[in-house]
Amino acid sequence: MSMKRKVAILGATGAVGQRFIQLLQGHPWFQISVLAASERSAGKKYKDACPWLMETELPEEIAEMSVVNADVKSVEQAGEVDLVFSSLPGDLAGPAETHFGALYPVFSKASAHRMDKDVPLFIPEVNPDHAEMVKIQQKLRGWKGFITTDPNCSTIQLAITLKPLMQFGLKQVMVSTMQALSGAGYPGVSSLDIIDNVVPFISGEEEKMEAEALKILGKYNSAGCNVQNAIFQLSASCNRVNVKDGHLESVFIKLEQDPIIDEIEEAFANFQGEPQRLKLPSAPVNPIVVRHEKNRPQPRFDRDAGCGMSVVVGRIRKDPIMTFKYMCLGHNTIRGAAGGGILSAEFYVSKGLA
Amino acid sequence: MSMKRKVAILGATGAVGQRFIQLLQGHPWFQISVLAASERSAGKKYKDACPWLMETELPEEIAEMSVVNADVKSVEQAGEVDLVFSSLPGDLAGPAETHFGALYPVFSKASAHRMDKDVPLFIPEVNPDHAEMVKIQQKLRGWKGFITTDPNCSTIQLAITLKPLMQFGLKQVMVSTMQALSGAGYPGVSSLDIIDNVVPFISGEEEKMEAEALKILGKYNSAGCNVQNAIFQLSASCNRVNVKDGHLESVFIKLEQDPIIDEIEEAFANFQGEPQRLKLPSAPVNPIVVRHEKNRPQPRFDRDAGCGMSVVVGRIRKDPIMTFKYMCLGHNTIRGAAGGGILSAEFYVSKGLA
Amino acid sequence: MSMKRKVAILGATGAVGQRFIQLLQGHPWFQISVLAASERSAGKKYKDACPWLMETELPEEIAEMSVVNADVKSVEQAGEVDLVFSSLPGDLAGPAETHFGALYPVFSKASAHRMDKDVPLFIPEVNPDHAEMVKIQQKLRGWKGFITTDPNCSTIQLAITLKPLMQFGLKQVMVSTMQALSGAGYPGVSSLDIIDNVVPFISGEEEKMEAEALKILGKYNSAGCNVQNAIFQLSASCNRVNVKDGHLESVFIKLEQDPIIDEIEEAFANFQGEPQRLKLPSAPVNPIVVRHEKNRPQPRFDRDAGCGMSVVVGRIRKDPIMTFKYMCLGHNTIRGAAGGGILSAEFYVSKGLA
Amino acid sequence: MSMKRKVAILGATGAVGQRFIQLLQGHPWFQISVLAASERSAGKKYKDACPWLMETELPEEIAEMSVVNADVKSVEQAGEVDLVFSSLPGDLAGPAETHFGALYPVFSKASAHRMDKDVPLFIPEVNPDHAEMVKIQQKLRGWKGFITTDPNCSTIQLAITLKPLMQFGLKQVMVSTMQALSGAGYPGVSSLDIIDNVVPFISGEEEKMEAEALKILGKYNSAGCNVQNAIFQLSASCNRVNVKDGHLESVFIKLEQDPIIDEIEEAFANFQGEPQRLKLPSAPVNPIVVRHEKNRPQPRFDRDAGCGMSVVVGRIRKDPIMTFKYMCLGHNTIRGAAGGGILSAEFYVSKGLA
Repeated sequence: MSMKRKVAILGATGAVGQRFIQLLQGHPWFQISVLAASERSAGKKYKDACPWLMETELPEEIAEMSVVNADVKSVEQAGEVDLVFSSLPGDLAGPAETHFGALYPVFSKASAHRMDKDVPLFIPEVNPDHAEMVKIQQKLRGWKGFITTDPNCSTIQLAITLKPLMQFGLKQVMVSTMQALSGAGYPGVSSLDIIDNVVPFISGEEEKMEAEALKILGKYNSAGCNVQNAIFQLSASCNRVNVKDGHLESVFIKLEQDPIIDEIEEAFANFQGEPQRLKLPSAPVNPIVVRHEKNRPQPRFDRDAGCGMSVVVGRIRKDPIMTFKYMCLGHNTIRGAAGGGILSAEFYVSKGLA
Repeated sequence: MSMKRKVAILGATGAVGQRFIQLLQGHPWFQISVLAASERSAGKKYKDACPWLMETELPEEIAEMSVVNADVKSVEQAGEVDLVFSSLPGDLAGPAETHFGALYPVFSKASAHRMDKDVPLFIPEVNPDHAEMVKIQQKLRGWKGFITTDPNCSTIQLAITLKPLMQFGLKQVMVSTMQALSGAGYPGVSSLDIIDNVVPFISGEEEKMEAEALKILGKYNSAGCNVQNAIFQLSASCNRVNVKDGHLESVFIKLEQDPIIDEIEEAFANFQGEPQRLKLPSAPVNPIVVRHEKNRPQPRFDRDAGCGMSVVVGRIRKDPIMTFKYMCLGHNTIRGAAGGGILSAEFYVSKGLA
Repeated sequence: MSMKRKVAILGATGAVGQRFIQLLQGHPWFQISVLAASERSAGKKYKDACPWLMETELPEEIAEMSVVNADVKSVEQAGEVDLVFSSLPGDLAGPAETHFGALYPVFSKASAHRMDKDVPLFIPEVNPDHAEMVKIQQKLRGWKGFITTDPNCSTIQLAITLKPLMQFGLKQVMVSTMQALSGAGYPGVSSLDIIDNVVPFISGEEEKMEAEALKILGKYNSAGCNVQNAIFQLSASCNRVNVKDGHLESVFIKLEQDPIIDEIEEAFANFQGEPQRLKLPSAPVNPIVVRHEKNRPQPRFDRDAGCGMSVVVGRIRKDPIMTFKYMCLGHNTIRGAAGGGILSAEFYVSKGLA
Repeated sequence: MSMKRKVAILGATGAVGQRFIQLLQGHPWFQISVLAASERSAGKKYKDACPWLMETELPEEIAEMSVVNADVKSVEQAGEVDLVFSSLPGDLAGPAETHFGALYPVFSKASAHRMDKDVPLFIPEVNPDHAEMVKIQQKLRGWKGFITTDPNCSTIQLAITLKPLMQFGLKQVMVSTMQALSGAGYPGVSSLDIIDNVVPFISGEEEKMEAEALKILGKYNSAGCNVQNAIFQLSASCNRVNVKDGHLESVFIKLEQDPIIDEIEEAFANFQGEPQRLKLPSAPVNPIVVRHEKNRPQPRFDRDAGCGMSVVVGRIRKDPIMTFKYMCLGHNTIRGAAGGGILSAEFYVSKGLA
């Protein structure tokens, strides 16, 4: 037990922070040692600092832990730390992650540093070689630690499905999303805004999707310590729907080649990444699950596939304009947030990078 | 009062039939004389034949009317009839509408005859000249009456927004829909299927959208008594969301020209059709309402625009792949069904065609 | 037009404040002259100070009005004021209403002064004589104005149905509520708290219901300038459900007498109050509407009865323990808040008290 | 494995039947051998006979089983049967269960035989001695098998909480329910009936609750082979809310004694029944879980307590009229249906009665 790496969670009281806590219970490699959040929560017992939103019980020992302020000094005083998960809110994340990154490996779910030139935007199944970038980042910045980032939740699941399509010459991606409430955090979306309604706008989301996917699927250039964007085009239209968890995306794809549907299905279904080869603790057996029913994937039925770490694809069909179209669904706070972050950390650890 | 045209409603007990009843209350030109439905309801008082689903009260005199079977003989015995609205279910609509069409002008909301060569697929703001086709239909079939049809609910609102884009050279339309529960009729979607969920499939809907839009926006050829399809391409992906009324659509458009956003907005906002020029009783002042808030249109807030007869457009923005993208929303059982049917009938009457 | 009374709305940016604005459009007696709110909104145009939550459009002239701070000086500078509606949040309401009450008639929807000895807790159909209390309040306090209050939203609709039961000797009332989201204001209830859920707790609500009903139905004692509580007992259990508007209450009643169901129904259906006799502009024809369907009242279908000013009662039936049971439903932000406040003001004005 | 009892499920395609299938996967004592349903499904593979509604996957071997008609001959031909679970719809259940009961132990979730004089209405924690009644039932009817029944879903959870209150002299119970959608089966409640709504009526539910609780908590009289009803009174008001699973009940209790809240809490928390003492496979550690948060139990957070077999109680507080009030919540298709039926069967088996 004492051999486990000690982790600090920055932003531990938020919706993603709670998911980190839930998923790290009984984790074979990681052990929570420090819970940090904003000043408002600092000094309180965790159970008093926030309402627990998970359907599983708040673990007793977490409930009694004191929350500390999310600065390096407070965290170091609070406990031993080997690595850091950050789900701080946007405005706090930028500077805080820089301070922590100088000292520790920081696995960030925040958007602040995603587009930094020397920071990986990382999905272990999709761009495992980008992880190497942190070695040069450390050298350039003179840091003991580093920052690596996870993409936006709606981007992660899409990018995983795009990866096996690269072999066919990916040219254009058009996507219209139907995103879950938990993606907005807590309290997040007011019930009065969403009952009997859809909100066709999520601030900054379309821009993130359109920019991030190109970096994730881009080519890592170790000489320049940067990523050369992939050359396909992406257009997104983002909507919030009255669903608790699970982003559903309607995707239209243009390829250079014209594979038949069976070939596309196979490419999805057979896709395997480094986490599967390395048998990482949080890796799903299949990063992509293909369903053949005419009306799937559906958020309530498919979001927990692979313990929330698989992306579920369905309704793969030819398209009158593009090459083909399909639906994809992922659990936005597991694969799309805390689970994705933990899998990234597992990958870095297994490669000796963290 | 006695000068009003007498109308029979076929399928009067269904969700669309009820909306016909609601919207025809106090109509200046039309008066309900016969309520017809399937055998199961025939012989019952209307109030006992179905649960009333509208939020307004069931009118007293309708409640007490007897429902008759939806065959010509039963309807003729039940009352005087000048024209017929049909919202019969798919399997019954085909033959029944043929029988009624031989004798009466039939305004159909069913899909059975939409793609018939000599039958208009009609939206009075979009293709008013197609109405002329019924004169030739009558001649060819030797009928006293005729059949004219309304498009599918998700197609109507889209087609209205496409019309003013034709001037820019419409080439491609990609649309992902988020459709309301009432589109599936009553009892329709089970609550267990939709709570905390989205269903990414509506049987036949994508095929209807992809075929119907081309006919609606096509060119009427009076010589051949047919319509030459418009030449743009359309791809649809259809989803059911947990919203009572109001279909929301995420639309991506490719044009031959490259108008600036202001020009597109003006084209939408200034669009006027024959119903507006004729000041038909059910015509909205603006067929298309443009909203400028960053998060509109939304079903609950915008579905009642123009008494449910306006289509509301918003989020008009440039697109990285296509020319531009936007959201559009329409009330699926008013403009998309009963209200659309009534407006069509008003148009035919005002033109002396019915 | 210039003869209309000028009204200031304190708390104009909140959910109830917006309803005040909506309901006062075109009001024959009242005209909005000042919109006041907390410091955060002061100085902004109304349209920039809050998201408009009503399904009807924000009136143009309101959108452009400047919001001022809810203190007497700021309000007086902003415009002429004859009377004041207050829907300030709890902590601000107490002192602010006292300052305004010294100068103006204040119609308060806040709870701060409801149980003050010399302040009416007022429903014009139920305890019209309590309004007289403000004359003595003015004398005692040396005020030009006064404070009168409306009960809690869940209490108002219940109290209206209890009034006609007093004749049978009301002894005990047990009530379990299912309350709408809008009762918690905006943003109020997080969507993550209520999707696929019920929350069986509303802070302070049970205590309010149990205390307020006794004062409302109590006897006004002009000598002491106070109210002698009614002597029945009331127990409440309050729940929040996933409904936008309309509180539904399950009520069990013990009476001294044992009337048959028909007598109770008649007492409900025939109940008329002063607002009906005075034909006040906002008075519904029937304060209580009785429905006979086995499954009514329902929030979505019945909340707009009497333009949201009627309370709808149904399922009146004998009870194995108490005398009888029934369901009642009222629109919580119309009759239960802004509409109730406006009706109160109409009553005071018509009686020459304001 | 071959030592497991073979079970037939009557009504296997319905919502409760599916839950039986889900819960019996990997059961240590029972193995599904026959799936039976109405004629409509007979002859089809299970996967083609009904849409699978559970969030877990349909087990492969169940998917491929043929569904047979729910008559004795068809079931016997289909496979070996040791005992029968029935969740047939009301009209079919009566005669079918009689035919099966003559030959097999029948554990019925249907209401048809619940009030039969010689049939137990059984909850193993509450009235374990009633199980003995089947021995006399067999003798009187000359049957090899027997029928035993489970109460209505809303009654089961209430009755479990009433049992430990009997020691204080239970006199009166008033309950207002907020019941989940799955209680109405599939397709059950139309989404159009429940969106933004509550339906304050469930056919026959109040009558069942008011009658069944008295039999369950009554005294078994072996001489007469009947049950003498308990002598307390019960009044119910039943509502359907927009929640997937989990009935929430607001309960008011009058006792002869006047225990303090702590004593009541202890009585709930310490309650143990025969299933706990026998350590039956489906028995929860605690039949009643007491929560102390001010806003619990809530359906989404508490319905899975004890794998859906515990009843969760909260908000225990003094009442101004009765002795005290509380909220209780149970999973209506686990403890309230299939899980309850399986626990009953485990009890009968462990006692050598089946």
